[in-house]
Amino acid sequence: MQEDKTEQIIVAVDAMGGDNAPLEIVKGSVDAVNKSKSVKVVLIGQEDVIRPVLSQLPCPKGQIEIRNATEVISTEETPVMAVRKKKDSSIVVGERMVKNGEADAFVSAGSTGAVLAGGSLIVGRLKGVERTPLGALIPTAKGVAFLVDSGANMDCKTTYLVQFAKMGAIYMEHVMGIKNPRVALVNVGVEEEKGNALAKEAHQLLKDCRDINFIGNIEAREIPAGGADVVVCDGFVGNVVLKSYEGVSGVLISEIKKSLMGSLRTKIGGALIKPALKEMLKNFDTSEYGGAPMLGLNGLVVKTHGSAKAKEIRNSILQCVTFKEQRIKEKIQENLVSGSEDTK
Amino acid sequence: MQEDKTEQIIVAVDAMGGDNAPLEIVKGSVDAVNKSKSVKVVLIGQEDVIRPVLSQLPCPKGQIEIRNATEVISTEETPVMAVRKKKDSSIVVGERMVKNGEADAFVSAGSTGAVLAGGSLIVGRLKGVERTPLGALIPTAKGVAFLVDSGANMDCKTTYLVQFAKMGAIYMEHVMGIKNPRVALVNVGVEEEKGNALAKEAHQLLKDCRDINFIGNIEAREIPAGGADVVVCDGFVGNVVLKSYEGVSGVLISEIKKSLMGSLRTKIGGALIKPALKEMLKNFDTSEYGGAPMLGLNGLVVKTHGSAKAKEIRNSILQCVTFKEQRIKEKIQENLVSGSEDTK
Repeated sequence: MQEDKTEQIIVAVDAMGGDNAPLEIVKGSVDAVNKSKSVKVVLIGQEDVIRPVLSQLPCPKGQIEIRNATEVISTEETPVMAVRKKKDSSIVVGERMVKNGEADAFVSAGSTGAVLAGGSLIVGRLKGVERTPLGALIPTAKGVAFLVDSGANMDCKTTYLVQFAKMGAIYMEHVMGIKNPRVALVNVGVEEEKGNALAKEAHQLLKDCRDINFIGNIEAREIPAGGADVVVCDGFVGNVVLKSYEGVSGVLISEIKKSLMGSLRTKIGGALIKPALKEMLKNFDTSEYGGAPMLGLNGLVVKTHGSAKAKEIRNSILQCVTFKEQRIKEKIQENLVSGSEDTK
Repeated sequence: MQEDKTEQIIVAVDAMGGDNAPLEIVKGSVDAVNKSKSVKVVLIGQEDVIRPVLSQLPCPKGQIEIRNATEVISTEETPVMAVRKKKDSSIVVGERMVKNGEADAFVSAGSTGAVLAGGSLIVGRLKGVERTPLGALIPTAKGVAFLVDSGANMDCKTTYLVQFAKMGAIYMEHVMGIKNPRVALVNVGVEEEKGNALAKEAHQLLKDCRDINFIGNIEAREIPAGGADVVVCDGFVGNVVLKSYEGVSGVLISEIKKSLMGSLRTKIGGALIKPALKEMLKNFDTSEYGGAPMLGLNGLVVKTHGSAKAKEIRNSILQCVTFKEQRIKEKIQENLVSGSEDTK
């Protein structure tokens, strides 16, 4: 059955989460099923809200259904508490479907904390996985890099980082199609004696991993330049990398736009370069790749940006198809169980 | 004497350090003394190398001299060892001058590690200062922010962060002239329960500091937007913030340039917007402000970029004048000694 690539893959989608729910979520889901015959989407949320939106969009019969869930978890709620209390929320219902095998994956633009908490509490970790990181695909001058952990685990042990590296490498190789991906550890210098205690120890363990292509430390400056395919760090540092990315590029682009509005001369110049600039910036648009997968779970959970529009939702759903077809879960399981003997 | 602002301030400058030594270093020093009557520069390094460069540049008599130092510490050397072994290097000689009171400050574009190691080992910490951070001025949409620690101390205790916050606030208020600067702690969310163990604890201590304007946590995304004046974190995270800044803006700008060379249309557009773009990017040029001061020492040590040109050297030297005139060292001493009772 694992070899049967024509098997239909069921993706549960949180229709209530994010800034643009339900419209963009439903649109993205419809786009996904129109794009791929092998996916079936279950939209989860308040049926009376979702139904009118869905009925307006043309889509193939039998590939989308709605599963009613009456409650909604907001981003203001304390994640663990919300997940425990709101049993009939779209996040809990969706993650329970993954747990029960009713769905292969769950996609949500809702509360990151609740999605992550539910991932651990409801879906559960694979045997041998110490912590489940959130991976994020980030644009670089050479394409895309996978930042893992991008924000799920704050205080990490070195062994967690080693597992993040292995899971990240599997993801990049088999979902993104990058052969023998270069794995690097975020640090303040390339020399192996550099860094804080965590980085120094992790460097030594990673050097001894025979099943990944560890290329050493990477300074944050080299991440956007495309210095590595898998960028490993704890979730605190990963969050800083990711948010710095968004912040710096956001400010620069807005300052450039402002400076183009300064005079007639720059307005004309701006009009001439606009299409090329737009094309260039598209390469720096993370929504092209879909959301951030939570790795090491007994199923797949993908968190998109809260501001996700149809394109990111569609791509996240299609990412789930590749994840399942490439048997990423099984590969992680096999690798970490055998790998854990490697490094001990 | 502390009130006498016409007193001459002596700045020792490492003429051998950095990618552009000695030419740009000497040029910057000459520019500084031409700009300010209250500064005297002592260029430190190999006299036979420095003298020919200096003799070609017009400068007022008596404001620049050379102090011969035969050895040079390279960036490849292990910092602590190099500082211990090379007693006659420009870094060691310069820092010893500060220690002995022969100079008020030392400016270097050389090995960061050696400059920092020498700062602690030779110049020494002020009484009550637990760790001496490296502050960095970083451009924001609203002006400039002070990132402290930007890379000197890897594994920090919460009490270090509190001192970084206090020293950073004094620097921003009295050197940069920002009244009641907003101090924020780098974290993964604004809520106080967010973050790793260090950030959670530091938040609580900072909340209780009555002598700084603590505005809470700041996400890395809000740093470039100008969300705080003093941005506090450990040196590992600070280095990631700083290098992400450089990396993302570097890649974006180079990609924009590339996209402008794509066609005749974009070339014309590019030519029209070039002056405005240049002006805008100047605001994102950290060399406008001078180098990174090491705070909490018994004297001032300023580390510029390794790639520093004359402008950054000049501004770093002038920064030393303000530092001395504003009695920053004394203010830090007074604040930390009284402040340490505050938080205990």
